[in-house]
Amino acid sequence: MKLGALGEGPLVDGLRRRFQPRKDGRVVMAMGDDTAVTTERPDRVLLATTDTLVEDVHFAPSYTSPFLLGRKAVSVSLSDIAAMGGEPLFLLASLVVAPDREKEFIDALYDGMASVMEPHGVELVGGNTCAGDGPMAVTTTVLGEAAAGEVVYRRGASVGDDVYVTGTPGDSALGLRYLRELGRAALEAAGPVREAAFRHLDPTPRVAAGALLARRRAATAMIDISDGVLLDLGRLCRESGVGAVVEEGRFPLSRAMEAHAEAGGETAPLILAGGEDYELLFTAPPDKAPMVREIASQTGLAVRAVGRIVDSREGVAALDRRGRPIEIAQTGFDHFGSRPLPPCVDLPRKDVYNYPSNSRRNSGQPS
Amino acid sequence: MKLGALGEGPLVDGLRRRFQPRKDGRVVMAMGDDTAVTTERPDRVLLATTDTLVEDVHFAPSYTSPFLLGRKAVSVSLSDIAAMGGEPLFLLASLVVAPDREKEFIDALYDGMASVMEPHGVELVGGNTCAGDGPMAVTTTVLGEAAAGEVVYRRGASVGDDVYVTGTPGDSALGLRYLRELGRAALEAAGPVREAAFRHLDPTPRVAAGALLARRRAATAMIDISDGVLLDLGRLCRESGVGAVVEEGRFPLSRAMEAHAEAGGETAPLILAGGEDYELLFTAPPDKAPMVREIASQTGLAVRAVGRIVDSREGVAALDRRGRPIEIAQTGFDHFGSRPLPPCVDLPRKDVYNYPSNSRRNSGQPS
Repeated sequence: MKLGALGEGPLVDGLRRRFQPRKDGRVVMAMGDDTAVTTERPDRVLLATTDTLVEDVHFAPSYTSPFLLGRKAVSVSLSDIAAMGGEPLFLLASLVVAPDREKEFIDALYDGMASVMEPHGVELVGGNTCAGDGPMAVTTTVLGEAAAGEVVYRRGASVGDDVYVTGTPGDSALGLRYLRELGRAALEAAGPVREAAFRHLDPTPRVAAGALLARRRAATAMIDISDGVLLDLGRLCRESGVGAVVEEGRFPLSRAMEAHAEAGGETAPLILAGGEDYELLFTAPPDKAPMVREIASQTGLAVRAVGRIVDSREGVAALDRRGRPIEIAQTGFDHFGSRPLPPCVDLPRKDVYNYPSNSRRNSGQPS
Repeated sequence: MKLGALGEGPLVDGLRRRFQPRKDGRVVMAMGDDTAVTTERPDRVLLATTDTLVEDVHFAPSYTSPFLLGRKAVSVSLSDIAAMGGEPLFLLASLVVAPDREKEFIDALYDGMASVMEPHGVELVGGNTCAGDGPMAVTTTVLGEAAAGEVVYRRGASVGDDVYVTGTPGDSALGLRYLRELGRAALEAAGPVREAAFRHLDPTPRVAAGALLARRRAATAMIDISDGVLLDLGRLCRESGVGAVVEEGRFPLSRAMEAHAEAGGETAPLILAGGEDYELLFTAPPDKAPMVREIASQTGLAVRAVGRIVDSREGVAALDRRGRPIEIAQTGFDHFGSRPLPPCVDLPRKDVYNYPSNSRRNSGQPS
């Protein structure tokens, strides 16, 4: 049944049934009024973040599914909470969707959202759905909390700190390349291609690792890698008033990236500028290295030191395997000043790499 | 300068300057990280609401301006907070906008947002901006608070309560009609036309009245009139498990509505089903009438009793000036089950009345 033909009653009732309160009674009102009501807690700070995924900018129906889209819409906002070391709690979802979409599409989208929310104990408390004839847009607002004094910002890095990343940055951009070449066939392809494609379509927010890094005061500054290692590291450095040097050779390679390199593909642009990995990039003083290793082992997550924080006059630089500076066109720290209109930094992400057809539109280059 | 050619740095820096923290230090981090951080307060509940305005669905550039659009985007979310009796505090804004829009457009949009936020002490704490080639969409998420126990829900109405409205419902729909006929010329037209047009383009959220009605425990249930008196009253009744009867003759008429009536225009569909007035509709027991009058006088707001709460078996009905039931096509309580896909009730609003060209698309009627 098309959404335009479906009534409000069944949809709202279905949503209420699907997304029932499960937490410790903190949700006083969800989805009965236009405004959600939740209880607050003393000695905690409130965390709030919002992200939008736009059809044909952040995703394309040719290579993703509504279920995966729902997962990603939640994951990208949870990743922002993870990067503060916070606990995600509540979600508001706003959809702009054409009235001729099938109800099954929205059902699958909500199924995808729920499949990420549930393991994290996140509840849907509100939202809004509009008919719109243009591209679909999914806006997720996630509210979370942290103990006051345990939030990790971008601004805390000091000269001498090590720079760490979780996981294997670059896989998402590599996966996107496969998806653009192969469409959904990439999801049924051989191991490494499929793995990379899923890293792009279904990134994992590093909530547990972010929370541990914050609670144990291991990380001095933290950000999630949404727009590429160099660009996000540049943001962290700008807020902290420092510079940084990372070495490409210290980044771990996934099976997919190894296969790509063996086939003669360039890895530096993917790893350093790829974007949409939603891994954590953080800094920690050298004496915290054992604690970082312990947290990595506890969360089962690869965590690798890839560089160090230097004086701000040195800027943000990447060195290749021979210690020579890497220049990457169209991205990285130097690109900071030439991207479109973020009030709060989250940007159209696919402009970062590998979008030649849209590169002018999305890169923010003067036309 | 087009947005696509403008850098991130100048835009973010401009936003940070424009929207500086002004409250009592509760904003720990806004717009430096992807996630805003604010302090919580004991004995308060958190209120969260989100709304989206979509180009060509909720507004058209032919008859509104970016400044007024910015004002309305904030006002509609503040209205949701007002309907709970809450204090609005923080705003997150998410834009989907074509990269060929001029920077001046966004500047004016933010100016409009700020012009509503500032008098209410609301701070911008986060947001997100995406390039998108389709219609523009503005999503506003407002966070607010109220004392625990002083929140007014839809669900508290009892048989015997009076039904009140603030202001003069119907003006927004009348103004929209003028705007569609005259375009922006309606804004320079003679008094009543202009007044009605501005009621549509620039509704006033009734924050102070909502807060007083809550704090003094005058209102038993409350909702804002976003989708029409009968439809929103129907929602309140459904949540409260009651019915209601309102009398058209008891609604106050604005100068514009009086002129419309004198010219032979129908008033009942506008008043009862018009939508987008963002006035408050609330219920209160008869013994609270003096308190309601006092709050009206204190806030300088017209507040009129227009009906009463009855048993749920009587449904939701409207009577004309001779006491006969009014049937209104395409809207009202009976229309409840035939509108498109809200998870949380806020709907494409312009489907309610006077959109013949889109009525199939937006009314949710089976095609």
